[in-house]
Amino acid sequence: MTTLYGYFRSSAAYRVRIALNLKGLAFEQAPVNLVKGEQREETNRARNPQGLVPTLETDDGARLTQSLAICEYLDEQHPEPPLLPSDTEGRARVRALAQLVACEIHPLNNLRVLKHLVGELGVDDDAKLGWYRHWITEGFDALEAMLIPGAGSGDFCHGDEPSLADICLVPQVYNAERFECDLSAYPTIQRITANCRALPAFQQAAPEAQPDAG
Amino acid sequence: MTTLYGYFRSSAAYRVRIALNLKGLAFEQAPVNLVKGEQREETNRARNPQGLVPTLETDDGARLTQSLAICEYLDEQHPEPPLLPSDTEGRARVRALAQLVACEIHPLNNLRVLKHLVGELGVDDDAKLGWYRHWITEGFDALEAMLIPGAGSGDFCHGDEPSLADICLVPQVYNAERFECDLSAYPTIQRITANCRALPAFQQAAPEAQPDAG
Repeated sequence: MTTLYGYFRSSAAYRVRIALNLKGLAFEQAPVNLVKGEQREETNRARNPQGLVPTLETDDGARLTQSLAICEYLDEQHPEPPLLPSDTEGRARVRALAQLVACEIHPLNNLRVLKHLVGELGVDDDAKLGWYRHWITEGFDALEAMLIPGAGSGDFCHGDEPSLADICLVPQVYNAERFECDLSAYPTIQRITANCRALPAFQQAAPEAQPDAG
Repeated sequence: MTTLYGYFRSSAAYRVRIALNLKGLAFEQAPVNLVKGEQREETNRARNPQGLVPTLETDDGARLTQSLAICEYLDEQHPEPPLLPSDTEGRARVRALAQLVACEIHPLNNLRVLKHLVGELGVDDDAKLGWYRHWITEGFDALEAMLIPGAGSGDFCHGDEPSLADICLVPQVYNAERFECDLSAYPTIQRITANCRALPAFQQAAPEAQPDAG
């Protein structure tokens, strides 16, 4: 059985849950509680040397890390429905949109970084929230501009089917909402997110639907 | 002609230069001076809505962003020599190693973030350096552990040929050296980096070899 080591609120685990659901793959969940620090314990480091989540343990015992690498693996192993378009330029666009979130927004705003800002740099709660919202604004300003119909967006980030870009977008919007970011300047992001949230694959992957949701 | 909009010291542009060189592709360079803030000007935002580098303008006028997406595009358009192994699990491993650098180290340590720490959060030079080295240590500790021969590493991060993982590793090591990080705990990272630096594709992509090196 495929097992996902994750955490209900981890954006990266959330991405993998969406991908698994879009592919219609059954999987077990093994929660790693990030708030309690279980990700840094030896049992988790043995499967994920970074001491992070998610880790996907496949049927044949391989342990895969890094959410986008896992999603591409799933797409290669189970090609239907595709998470990337068939044309090379389209694939580059979808990967770029996904990486805008995964390389430019999320790494700056995840739990370990926010904890480090407070614990090591002595940043107060207001400044922490300012930091969070700054990187959301920087990233979403660009994303909104890149999601114009002329560039290939439709009902979803690329065309009219969900892709790797939407898999990254929705968990990031969820997080931005948790931090009460004002998203009124991003009508396209909101429209596409609503379209994603209408799909069972996204609904069943949502943090509040997970067994470890507290 | 393929044109790379980049900056000699940008890690992300450095990755794309290595990929272009490994593929043996000719390209023009159009420098965007990050220290002068040219990346945020309208001319750059028109080609890269994030206001970042690199942007690769292809022969047919397409403008591609995000370095890993660009490298995968080049690999799909010009399959030889491959930047990813042929087996699905190997591809997942190489992508995960690349993303460890591109999603977990570099986003926290690039120029715009360091500037924000100093300018907005009032962090002093010592604390900025501490921040930089902290994320290098976190990332390289994990990377060193993941580069064991049993997991598939050889002369390079995966096997005996350079891949997308090495393309990400070498610019990150270059940056760590600039910030005088102690790399003595990472013999495998150092050995693989030395092997990469023996190759013309990496040498010709090095920051000091670029036309805009100041």
